[in-house]
Parts: sequence; C-alpha cells; structure tokens
Amino acid sequence: MGKAFFCAMRFDMMRPRKIFLSLAILSALPSASYAAGGGGDADPIPTVLLALIVILAVAKLGGELVERLGMPAVLGELLGGVILGNLILLNPRWSFFEPLRVTPLQTDWAVIISALAQLGVIILLFEVGLEATVKGMMKVGASSLMVATLGVVAPFLLGFGVSWLFIKEIPPELAAIVPPGFSLNYIHMFIGAVLCATSVGITARVFKDLNRLQTKEAQIILGAAVIDDVLGLIVFAVVSGLITAAESGQPLAVGAFLRLAGVAIVFLGGALALGTLLIPKIMNQLARLRTAGVMLISSLLFAFTLSYLAGVFGLAAIVGAFAAGLILEEVHFRGFRDEIHLEQLIQPVAAFLVPIFFVLMGIQVRIETFANSGILGVAAGLTIAAILGKQICGLGVLEKGLDRLTIGVGMVPRGEVGLIFASIGKYLKVIDDATFSAVVIMVIVTTLIAPPLLKLTIARRERASNPRMRP
Amino acid sequence: MGKAFFCAMRFDMMRPRKIFLSLAILSALPSASYAAGGGGDADPIPTVLLALIVILAVAKLGGELVERLGMPAVLGELLGGVILGNLILLNPRWSFFEPLRVTPLQTDWAVIISALAQLGVIILLFEVGLEATVKGMMKVGASSLMVATLGVVAPFLLGFGVSWLFIKEIPPELAAIVPPGFSLNYIHMFIGAVLCATSVGITARVFKDLNRLQTKEAQIILGAAVIDDVLGLIVFAVVSGLITAAESGQPLAVGAFLRLAGVAIVFLGGALALGTLLIPKIMNQLARLRTAGVMLISSLLFAFTLSYLAGVFGLAAIVGAFAAGLILEEVHFRGFRDEIHLEQLIQPVAAFLVPIFFVLMGIQVRIETFANSGILGVAAGLTIAAILGKQICGLGVLEKGLDRLTIGVGMVPRGEVGLIFASIGKYLKVIDDATFSAVVIMVIVTTLIAPPLLKLTIARRERASNPRMRP
Repeated sequence: MGKAFFCAMRFDMMRPRKIFLSLAILSALPSASYAAGGGGDADPIPTVLLALIVILAVAKLGGELVERLGMPAVLGELLGGVILGNLILLNPRWSFFEPLRVTPLQTDWAVIISALAQLGVIILLFEVGLEATVKGMMKVGASSLMVATLGVVAPFLLGFGVSWLFIKEIPPELAAIVPPGFSLNYIHMFIGAVLCATSVGITARVFKDLNRLQTKEAQIILGAAVIDDVLGLIVFAVVSGLITAAESGQPLAVGAFLRLAGVAIVFLGGALALGTLLIPKIMNQLARLRTAGVMLISSLLFAFTLSYLAGVFGLAAIVGAFAAGLILEEVHFRGFRDEIHLEQLIQPVAAFLVPIFFVLMGIQVRIETFANSGILGVAAGLTIAAILGKQICGLGVLEKGLDRLTIGVGMVPRGEVGLIFASIGKYLKVIDDATFSAVVIMVIVTTLIAPPLLKLTIARRERASNPRMRP
Repeated sequence: MGKAFFCAMRFDMMRPRKIFLSLAILSALPSASYAAGGGGDADPIPTVLLALIVILAVAKLGGELVERLGMPAVLGELLGGVILGNLILLNPRWSFFEPLRVTPLQTDWAVIISALAQLGVIILLFEVGLEATVKGMMKVGASSLMVATLGVVAPFLLGFGVSWLFIKEIPPELAAIVPPGFSLNYIHMFIGAVLCATSVGITARVFKDLNRLQTKEAQIILGAAVIDDVLGLIVFAVVSGLITAAESGQPLAVGAFLRLAGVAIVFLGGALALGTLLIPKIMNQLARLRTAGVMLISSLLFAFTLSYLAGVFGLAAIVGAFAAGLILEEVHFRGFRDEIHLEQLIQPVAAFLVPIFFVLMGIQVRIETFANSGILGVAAGLTIAAILGKQICGLGVLEKGLDRLTIGVGMVPRGEVGLIFASIGKYLKVIDDATFSAVVIMVIVTTLIAPPLLKLTIARRERASNPRMRP
C-alpha cells in the first residue's frame, strides 16, 4: 500500500507539467487546418476523432490517478474534464472544447460527441438497472424501504430549502422562454430532485475492499440504494414533467402532479410486469437465432426501445433504460449460444461511451462562475444538504444494534445519477451554468469524502463492539 | 441441413408481410410528434434512438435470414437497408429515413447516425488489421504476393475500362465544384480502385465450414487477401488524394502521383516500424495501470490516433485504423490483468456500430436510379469486371498442381472494403447516386455468388484428384 501510494504520488507530482503541456497542445490543435485534407465541405469525423482521443485519454489518466489515491475513477474523469474545459482561462487560444460548452450545441462534431455521451448515459443506467433485480428489492425488506424513502424525502426537502435560500430570481435564459407566471418553486424542486439519488457503486466498492459486503449494514445500504434509484427516478420524472408543462404555460396543478406521478409509476410498474411476462418468451425466440452478437444487440434494442418509450410517455430516456435493466435478468439468457454474461458484453460498450459523459460534464463546468461568490455558497449549501439529508435516513433503520452512522455515511455519495439529472436540468434551462457548476462541486465533494469517512465509521464501530480488534 | 433450410424458408416465406408492415409502421413514425414531450428546442436523441432501434433490428433480422440461407450476414444488413430506404417509393409518407439520404446531411439525428456508422467502419478496419499480422504476411510467400498484386492490378484496369465505356460525362454535382480541366479519368480511376479490395471473411468462412482452411489454396487466398488489403488501401489512398487535389484545381502530375504513393507507403511502413518498436514499451507501461478497461480503451485510442494521423497526412481514416490493427498484436497485452483477448473486447463495440454502417449503405441505395437502364449496364459491367479481374489473379500461383480456379473464385467477394471506398467516393462526389447504387449491386452479386461457386470448384477439384471421394 505504502509503495503503491508513493508510486501514485510520484506519478501525480512529477508528471503534471508534461501532462498539462500535452493537454494544452491538443486543446490548441486547430481542427480547421485538417479539414482541408479531407475534401469538399467540412467533415466532422476528424474533429470527432481528435476530441475522442483527448477525452478518452484524459478519462483514463484522470481515473488512474484518483484510483491510486483510493478514490473512484469517475472523480478523475470529472476533474480531467474540468481541466480540459477550463484551459481556455489560461490561454484564449486553447479553445478546442468551447463548442461543447454552448447551449444549444451548434457544431456538428459537438453534437456527435454529446450524442455519444448520452448513449453512454443510457447504457450506464441500463447497467445500474441490470445490477438490481426485482427479487433482490423484495428481499431487502422494511429497513431498506424506510432508509430509501427517508433518503429521498430528506435530501429533496433540504435541497429545496437551500435553493430557496440562495436562488432568488429566474435565470435570464429561462426567463426568456417561460410564461410570466413561472414560479421559482420549480427550480427549487428540481434542485431537490438532483439531491435524491444515491450512487451506491462507490459505497459498495469500499465495503468490498474492506471485505464487509456481507454485514447487515452493507445489505441495507445496497437494498436501499436500489429502491432509492427507483424513487429518485419517479421524483425526477414528476419534477421534470411539471417543469416541461410549466415552460409551455400550464399552471401548477395537483391534477398534473398526480398524473405525472401516475405515469411514472405505471410506466415502471407496467414495464416490470409486461417485461417479466414477455421477456422470457421473447428471449426463447431470440435464443434460436444463429447470428453472432444476438444477445448484445437484443439487449441494446430492448434498452433503446424502453428509453424511447419513456420519452413518448413524457419521462426521461434514462427512466426507460433503468427499467430495461431491472427487467432483464441473467436467467433469461440461459438458452443462448454465447457462453458469456450479459454484463461482460455490455461492459466494453460502456467502457467506451460512459467516460465521454463524465469528461463532458467536467468540460461544461465554468470555473469563472465561481468568481461570483454566491455560487460557492450554493455549492456549500448543496453539499451540506446532501450529507445531512442522507444522515437523516439512518433513522429509518428498524433493527436495533445496527450502526446508523455507517448507513447514513454510506448513502452520501451522489455521483452519476445526480449529474445526469443536473445535465437534463441544464437542457431544460432550470439550471444555469453557475448552478450546474455548484452541483458538480457537490457531486465531487460527496464522492470524495464518503470513502474515507466510511472507513472511519466502520473502524470506530468495530472497535466499540470488539475492543481487542484493531482496525 | 435440410431441416434448417426448410425452417429458414418458412421463416423467409411466411413472415415477410408481417415484417414488412412493421418496417412500414416504424418508418412512418413521425419523429416530430415526440419532440414535443422533451422540452424546449428539438432534442435529436429520441429520433437517434428510434433510428437505432429500427436499424439494429433490421440488421439482425436481415443478417439472420440470409445466414440461414448460407449467405454472409452483411448481405442481409445491406438488403435490409435497401428495403428501409426505399419504402418511400411505396408510400410517400414512409419518409423517416430520407434525412439519411441527402448529401451533405442536414439534420442533427442523421449526422449522429452517420458518425456512428463511420466510427463503426474505423473499428471494422481495425478488426481487419488485427486479424492480419506482419509476420503472417511475410510467411505466406511469393504466391500470395503475386496473387495479391494481380488481384489488385487486373480489377483496377478492368474497372477503369468499364467506367470508360459507360461513364461519358462528369456528374452535375461534381461538375459544379471542379475546375474546367477536371478529367473523367479520375472517375474511372476511382471506380477501378473500388474494385480492388477482396473481402476475405466470406471466403474464409466457406473454407472453414467445409473444413478446408488448412489446404494450400486456402492459405494462399488468406495471405493474398491481407496483402491485397494493404495494396488496395495504397491504391485507394493515391487515387482519392489525386482527386482531392484535382478538385481544388491542381493538374494531374507524375510528381503528385509519386508523392501520394510515397506518403501512403511511408505512412503504413512508418506506422509499422514505429509501432513495432514503441508499442511493446507503451503497452508495458499501460499494463501497470489499475483501472478497468485499460486494454480496450488504449487499443481504441491507438486506432483513433492513427486514423486521425492518416487524415493529417491526407489519407483516409480507414488506412490508419487498418495500420493500427496490423501493428497491435495479442502478444503486447500479455501483462494486462484483464484475462481476455483484445478481439473479444472490441467485438461488442463492433457488433453495435458496424451493422449501422451496412444498413446505412443500403438505405442510401436509390432503387429509382435503376429506371435509368444505363445504370444496370454499369452494374453488370462492374460485376463482370470484378469477377474476371480476380480470375486473372489465379495466374499468379507459382506452385504447380494447385487449383487456380478455386483461388480465383475465392478472391471474388468484394464486401465491406469496396463499399467503404464507394461511400468515400460519394462524399468526394466522384460517385453519384446512380453509380453508388451500381457499386452496391456489384458488392451484393459478388458476395452472393462466391460461396456456392466456391463450394462447386472445391468439390470439382476433389472429385478430379480423388474419383472415389464424393463431395
């Protein structure tokens, strides 16, 4: 451990100038000079290739650096993106990534990169859904359900409160498109929704590294996180649906609220019910096909179809992708000739597309917005709300003798899903550049502090219950 | 076999109406009605999802149907695309795929789908390169080299001749952008180049199915096809470079020709030499990284980087992707913790992206151009030139007692690479819609006839050398 850490530090300390220089050179590479070699009108593909090269290299490099420091790779991808996008602050000529930072996107290559990132998100949520199963959710029981419910309600209310404290006017970009009666409460609700979702991957990793995945605390957290994902998606579906309606001039009505909640629940429930009934039959048919890659393509088709249908029902595509993952279970693929797990097949596609999303999120953070000190306040407020909100959910543990602090801390990391919500908020214009940056800071901080805090609380707990044992 | 065939026929005969109807319904789905649910300005992602669903479903369905008939899956993907794209001839309202058929592409979603297809082509050529190794090319010896050289020169000359016979004027779209001195010979040269590349996958599959991969004939064909790929890419690089230069007004000069040939050879040779020296060292460094997916991402990075650099040198991206595959050998990955073959990791990404390209090529075929009977003549001429040209290369076999007819027939299928060249020709405007359709017909016919012909010649040969053996 010591050696690896030293190694990482050396990697970290001695190379930044070199890495930084290369990034700067790549960022400054004029894509225009190249297009001349192609022929005719501007072909976006060379620039797409260049952007992919830089983005994937930064994702892997950033991920590697932070993993060596014991942090999850996603953090390195985000931070790498923040550096790439903000190189322009050091030298106005390092503007290669600017086309990715304007809304709406104008340039063909930026549209393509953003689409790759969004396909990545759909595949990521599909993977998250695959990890969860309906049976698993039934099994974890009442404690997980209580923890999850509190873990959605408390951060939502706290996030609403922080937004109400700090955000006093509608951002100009949003004001330009909404009718006069548009209420600030929509923005508060959206920010509350962003704070709901737990990113359990990080916590699961820490428990696994400490060889504590089988403890009751770990089981409750993992169960709660799955239910939390479902509840968070429903809250998100309702809030974003209300905002879309409000932006087109419809007043906030209890009826609309109930209808949206109904659609979300019916969609998820219906997809689950139909899926559980139909999927085994469909898979039986597909298993008789002979061409290679049937398993992968039919799963992707299924994920894309539910994502598309979610949109038809007015929900976000990710809700459909998650439902698709929830429905598909390994067991349906037994008859297939490819003797390989579905996760293994999806993984390379995800490894290619998902980091593009996180680097892009980083690129879209505008460091200059922090000059406005109000934004640092929002970021601090959101981070505190995110942490406190999940501590409250420790109270939902029904069994006695369990460590509520560990459970609360385990639910803290926000990670992927919060970011995805925030990016959709940016698209809906309820979240402006400054607030988006604040959300990214909240995600980075909660993800950063959770692993060390978790190690501390687990050690403290085990010392207390067994004084002879050393951490 | 009999039963499978019957099964396939039943599948083929009874379902078309149902399949056809579903395709029509999907094609008619108005993407606009959906966008309203999203919010704000038009988000291309729902339409991208819908297009991906239809394209991947048709690719798998078409691939499956033709594989059951003993044909390669790529043929089904192409034909499926032809049906999808030409549904509009039956009903003007089935126009969903029209945005993919205009050059240059205008709509965001079409730009995204086309970019996915192009990334697919880069990954496909990378895979083709991975299958070949420098050592393997050295080993196959003089016969393969002679067969490959004749197999490039003869189809080039015949293709040039057919184009010279049929194409008597510069297409209007091209005429509008080129200087007055632009010679028709460029078009003839390009069509000659399109006829060069052998698609050996199909032949390899037939030999494998017949359990004849170890025969001398099979070895010569496989070796020749690899050298053929390299020579074809060089011819293509030179011809497309000359055309790009001519389109910007530079006269055809022996100097330019030699310079382009030099760049292509130096690029491929330099990439090979540098790659062979540096890649093992770089891979050793990468093997020390800990994050998951290092092997996949570093290979993709390498392929993308060489593709981009090829463009910087004025060559097509696919030349770089092929060189990247040629350089990377399994052996470089020995130190990696992922205990899995590189091909296995690339395969899911390819399975997702590559069929998009072939369906798109089919979609871009305009059946109505065949009403112009001249085009059927061009198609017939090209097909005959493609077949004859590869028969000539049988003469390159130096050893006595080998079956030259089998070798010639084995080199007939054009498949992927010819199509990729044609699609670039369309982009350069040297190939118009009608000629593109003719090239697609040539690819379909050569791919269709090769497997049964090959089975015939192998059986004939074995009957001749061993009269007691029955086929």
